[in-house]
Amino acid sequence: MDASGRGLLPEDEATHLTRVLRLGVGAAIEVFDGRGGVWTATVAEVSRHEVAVQSGVPVTAPVEPRVRLRLVASALKGDKLDDVVRDAAMVGVHDIQVVVTQRSELSMAALLRSGRAERWRRIAVSSLKQCGRSVLPTVPDPVTLTQWASTEPTGLLLVMCEPAAGQGRRISDVPRAAEVTLVVGPEGGWTPEELALLTELGAVAVKCGGLTLRADAAALVGVAALCEGWQVW
Amino acid sequence: MDASGRGLLPEDEATHLTRVLRLGVGAAIEVFDGRGGVWTATVAEVSRHEVAVQSGVPVTAPVEPRVRLRLVASALKGDKLDDVVRDAAMVGVHDIQVVVTQRSELSMAALLRSGRAERWRRIAVSSLKQCGRSVLPTVPDPVTLTQWASTEPTGLLLVMCEPAAGQGRRISDVPRAAEVTLVVGPEGGWTPEELALLTELGAVAVKCGGLTLRADAAALVGVAALCEGWQVW
Repeated sequence: MDASGRGLLPEDEATHLTRVLRLGVGAAIEVFDGRGGVWTATVAEVSRHEVAVQSGVPVTAPVEPRVRLRLVASALKGDKLDDVVRDAAMVGVHDIQVVVTQRSELSMAALLRSGRAERWRRIAVSSLKQCGRSVLPTVPDPVTLTQWASTEPTGLLLVMCEPAAGQGRRISDVPRAAEVTLVVGPEGGWTPEELALLTELGAVAVKCGGLTLRADAAALVGVAALCEGWQVW
Repeated sequence: MDASGRGLLPEDEATHLTRVLRLGVGAAIEVFDGRGGVWTATVAEVSRHEVAVQSGVPVTAPVEPRVRLRLVASALKGDKLDDVVRDAAMVGVHDIQVVVTQRSELSMAALLRSGRAERWRRIAVSSLKQCGRSVLPTVPDPVTLTQWASTEPTGLLLVMCEPAAGQGRRISDVPRAAEVTLVVGPEGGWTPEELALLTELGAVAVKCGGLTLRADAAALVGVAALCEGWQVW
């Protein structure tokens, strides 16, 4: 956006505005910068591939959780990660890192070949538009769990464990941290080596209740439990 | 199941066992009664439409939330309630009542004609099988919100409100009750009349954070927040 508040929509959004919403010059919309800024805006110019908008006054953005939330989500079967990304973007996660684990049924090669990360980034934008959130989570390309671990992640690490494993504290019993990463496993759970690796990184095993959660629902349940248990939303 | 521990599987489950899982006589399975009982069992006899099983020893059932949880879920577009029912059955809800609200896009006639309630009951069973929960939630036929209100529901009522409405307490700030009903609205939210009706019933407005949740995700987020906030799981 330039100093006068005029700017071009990203191409995807320009297409969505003209083809799906069928809006034209003069239409009143809201625009957001993905970093918490939201403004009223007017469609100023529509050409074949571009939409220029003139931004107006700032709009009060919805209140984000008072904690920096990162999700490390294991690759799941089929398109299930689409829902995980959509839900995480909705509920206040700041960064969504997909990791390939030993029991993930999708290989790294398949994930990269099919351009999934690009798809997840589009899903995150569309989830924000649907829910009116103004902070866009980053969605880096997938890496293996081992690669992720080698980045020496900072902040509090929480690893979701199956209640049947007999371990795991209630999230509210873990002291609150300003920066937290929730690590969620694949359908088949963690291997002992992976749990050892996470423990070595200092991860605290947590669980949400005594029932077994589906892998594609565990992240949403975990984030909700964390935000309510820590009273940070 | 008779005194000797022998019994027939329900027809759906018999078909699933023989056609999908392709199990035969002698196969080791687990059976549950939907009321918290789980047993080891063996397939004793397979005929064209029936499967007889011989139950063995009780298995320790997963731990349920220590609160009686009822969900009143507003009818949503398309098949979205399928996911709501599946998630509610997974996370420990005891009773799932679908209600048609003023802004629900599905009419009562359409819901009844399409046999949705029967479908939701099957989804609840299948969710239990997937997650290993042993208490089957009841899923009565849908009613209108007004009809439901006229049954004078007992226990604590919590109604999920959009954060934009500027009302709603954090669930953990509401005193814990042994029996609680979480009432969740449709995509378009509640009408002022509906909110007035719920308030008259004594419902407490609650919200989960400052971000807007999708209608089909609000129940799962609400139940997770409740169980963690009240420390009842």
